[in-house]
Amino acid sequence: MKEKIEEQFLKLKDTSELMIDLAYSALLYDNKEIAKEVLELEGVVDKLNYKIQRAAFSLSLEDQNVNKALAMIRLAYSIEAIADAAMEIADVVLRDIEPHPIFKMSVMDSDVIIAKTPVKKSSYLANKTLGQSHLMTETGMWVIAVNRGKTWIYGPDENTKIKSGDVLFARGPREGEKEFLKLTKGK
Amino acid sequence: MKEKIEEQFLKLKDTSELMIDLAYSALLYDNKEIAKEVLELEGVVDKLNYKIQRAAFSLSLEDQNVNKALAMIRLAYSIEAIADAAMEIADVVLRDIEPHPIFKMSVMDSDVIIAKTPVKKSSYLANKTLGQSHLMTETGMWVIAVNRGKTWIYGPDENTKIKSGDVLFARGPREGEKEFLKLTKGK
Repeated sequence: MKEKIEEQFLKLKDTSELMIDLAYSALLYDNKEIAKEVLELEGVVDKLNYKIQRAAFSLSLEDQNVNKALAMIRLAYSIEAIADAAMEIADVVLRDIEPHPIFKMSVMDSDVIIAKTPVKKSSYLANKTLGQSHLMTETGMWVIAVNRGKTWIYGPDENTKIKSGDVLFARGPREGEKEFLKLTKGK
Repeated sequence: MKEKIEEQFLKLKDTSELMIDLAYSALLYDNKEIAKEVLELEGVVDKLNYKIQRAAFSLSLEDQNVNKALAMIRLAYSIEAIADAAMEIADVVLRDIEPHPIFKMSVMDSDVIIAKTPVKKSSYLANKTLGQSHLMTETGMWVIAVNRGKTWIYGPDENTKIKSGDVLFARGPREGEKEFLKLTKGK
């Protein structure tokens, strides 16, 4: 039981953070597919929160500590609130209300940017998993979505293999972008 | 005017993201000082949101586009909701309700972790600015707070100089942590 709730908390946190990154990506690149995924993920978060609440009750019976259980429920709600905010951001994209260009300009000016780029045949990344590529530790860029033709991989992990032709959406420091773009083109 | 609102949006987004990272740091390391800073930053976010709302109105008069202005106001509210969620997480720390250890365990298990470590005299980072150290592009780790004796620097930038004895809180990929810890000790 403990192991399971631990996994659920982890998934809740990771999903909420992915949703924020995806929501900003959808906004920056006017991408409704990504925005729809944010809405899908909200459903996942909702179910996780429910499971955590139930598990918190079971734990409180086990160790006779109501306060700890209530703190967990509260944390789960707070994290779900982050997911909800991401959904609202994505909703702006789905409603076809283009926000003032100033918003995009300001996000593009951030120290943390979201890059979008295709992977060339000659790319160092082609046919490597994200783990093998050491992309994050080499450039600081974190791939949040991979678009392969009509399919999408959201929140890829170290085992996700990158292929030439993939379009990568990645979040990271402005100074890491140049190196990242180089790697998607060649060595 | 346009430039100013752009800066405010940027600051709103960056501050809300910093607040999330700080809130999790406060939780992981039972640190009330960091938790208090999250509450302080909520005040900053609140003021920024108000300014953006007023600016959105002015812009709508300039370009006669109410929809764009409303979308901006909506976005600013969504981003403030992220900040509010961070505040709730920090509040758990301030209320001295220690959540179930399972929560910490799950955050520590994430692909994205928050490390805390002192900078040794022999460290490669000592007496370098964060920009000079290329820490983010070399390890993927992003410094979110610096604790120097009784003072704190939250959300340091590339011009922040790291000194030996500083305690760094940094967010990044699990695989980047080892390299980061090495750099805080020596070359």
